[in-house]
Amino acid sequence: MGQKTDRPAVVGVMGGKKASAHHIEMAKKLGEFIAQSGFILLNGGKNSGIMEASAKGSKNKGGLSIGVLPDDNKDNLSQYIDIPIITGIGNARNQINILSSDIVIAFQGGLGTISEIAFAIKMKKPLIIFDFYPGKFIDEHLDKNIFLLKTLDEVTDKIKEILTT
Amino acid sequence: MGQKTDRPAVVGVMGGKKASAHHIEMAKKLGEFIAQSGFILLNGGKNSGIMEASAKGSKNKGGLSIGVLPDDNKDNLSQYIDIPIITGIGNARNQINILSSDIVIAFQGGLGTISEIAFAIKMKKPLIIFDFYPGKFIDEHLDKNIFLLKTLDEVTDKIKEILTT
Amino acid sequence: MGQKTDRPAVVGVMGGKKASAHHIEMAKKLGEFIAQSGFILLNGGKNSGIMEASAKGSKNKGGLSIGVLPDDNKDNLSQYIDIPIITGIGNARNQINILSSDIVIAFQGGLGTISEIAFAIKMKKPLIIFDFYPGKFIDEHLDKNIFLLKTLDEVTDKIKEILTT
Amino acid sequence: MGQKTDRPAVVGVMGGKKASAHHIEMAKKLGEFIAQSGFILLNGGKNSGIMEASAKGSKNKGGLSIGVLPDDNKDNLSQYIDIPIITGIGNARNQINILSSDIVIAFQGGLGTISEIAFAIKMKKPLIIFDFYPGKFIDEHLDKNIFLLKTLDEVTDKIKEILTT
Repeated sequence: MGQKTDRPAVVGVMGGKKASAHHIEMAKKLGEFIAQSGFILLNGGKNSGIMEASAKGSKNKGGLSIGVLPDDNKDNLSQYIDIPIITGIGNARNQINILSSDIVIAFQGGLGTISEIAFAIKMKKPLIIFDFYPGKFIDEHLDKNIFLLKTLDEVTDKIKEILTT
Repeated sequence: MGQKTDRPAVVGVMGGKKASAHHIEMAKKLGEFIAQSGFILLNGGKNSGIMEASAKGSKNKGGLSIGVLPDDNKDNLSQYIDIPIITGIGNARNQINILSSDIVIAFQGGLGTISEIAFAIKMKKPLIIFDFYPGKFIDEHLDKNIFLLKTLDEVTDKIKEILTT
Repeated sequence: MGQKTDRPAVVGVMGGKKASAHHIEMAKKLGEFIAQSGFILLNGGKNSGIMEASAKGSKNKGGLSIGVLPDDNKDNLSQYIDIPIITGIGNARNQINILSSDIVIAFQGGLGTISEIAFAIKMKKPLIIFDFYPGKFIDEHLDKNIFLLKTLDEVTDKIKEILTT
Repeated sequence: MGQKTDRPAVVGVMGGKKASAHHIEMAKKLGEFIAQSGFILLNGGKNSGIMEASAKGSKNKGGLSIGVLPDDNKDNLSQYIDIPIITGIGNARNQINILSSDIVIAFQGGLGTISEIAFAIKMKKPLIIFDFYPGKFIDEHLDKNIFLLKTLDEVTDKIKEILTT
């Protein structure tokens, strides 16, 4: 399951424009961890919520971040994103978020995040669902590739385990 | 909420490649109802499950059906679909299924159906979830535009109510 | 090359929002021909230029037309389109126009039309270029599947020849 | 027209899977220039032609490159690409190539490149067409934002002029 080439792994962090203060803080720390580990952060690119926070964390620690925007312009791009991918395909870009990530971390988010969890399972990506339960649609898919974790330490340990094996 | 022009309403029927015999039967009857009501059926276009069954129902009653395929070819197209839309964009086509429907009916399906339910709520389409509960992610969105219904009669009554008001 | 099933063939008519009065008239007549031949018209769905004119022609003769819109709403939809496909993917929808057509007719148009001509050749669709020369990029692809035609009679004869063989 | 933030500019290099030995060499040198200038290279990501050559040039000089793949997997990814964006949307990804670039350089390529030139003009991106003439469809759009250049020196000078003003 690990990264086979010398190309850095891409860690996709999914989550909505709205999030609790606790989750915002966790997203920032996760972005810092990703940068410090030499991984690349990928998220939805917007200047709010989990997206802005994780990009800020990556930037804090000198990491590299990719923001895959639904829009056809940069108006709502987070200032902390290093590489904006401007898709112009709306929510259909959620497919790209998942396909382009070597591992997916989902924060409690909105409906876009639900679609990304569904795509991650469908596209067989390692998936960490962080501190929430999206609904019983995931139950029949719970296997060794999906992880319901509660703390940031568990999340970072799992990322390391998956990407460096 | 009703259809304002003389253009027939488009009823989107979502559901996966696998379904119970009961749901397959309901999908066929729903396709028949859609055709007999003068509406247009839209689904994911494939030759299996809810897609094939609803298209067959529409065909039985002389209706018109649209199948929006993820693939870039017709290899897995249902023989009962009248108009194939070949997208070549994979699961990203789920966005098109929802945007192109005036009302969305979701059968218990796979992960693609979950993403379509999420998109339907996000894109504010009238949504009928038929005989299953997808998970608590829908709970905070339950409002007068989302309907959890158990029987086909309830479903057809609700479609008529929404599209002919 | 002809249509193998009993499903009506889909004739894609490409062309921009701006066109000469002569081409507008030809597009309307082509829409009429498509309807009278029992084929389905597919175009870009907008309420202007070649799109509006061809859809109006189809409507005049009781045909069926599909409009594949780049937008995520119907604000710029032609009133003559029977079935709007709302993609929300911008110009990326040009791929869908071509993949979904059994034959492509290109009127002199804008840059979108050029991309559609390029896609049609790339995706090996029978292509009629009507009364203009898009540029030498087509020259190395000129073969029995690409036709540079001058008059509407030549166009309708060629469509019949290709779709009914 | 220049890059307003401290984010490095993204230089999109378009061109097909097949190219002359001379153009392959120019693409490699252009990739080297992009890396040495501190810009980011974006291309179509494949392991052949202009894509492979420009990515190799960037890699030679320690640059950062993004490859936006049409496929839903990395099977045909160039080994020199640092960040693969896996879209799964086929040629519809050409829109993303253009929207995500601050400037577009087009080598003589295939039909995909023609569609990218059309999109670049339509989306008003600065466009350099390098050592070929795509066809008269560009003539009515020739303005101060489109440059037909013959030599690599002219190209690199123009990129610097546009991105550092």
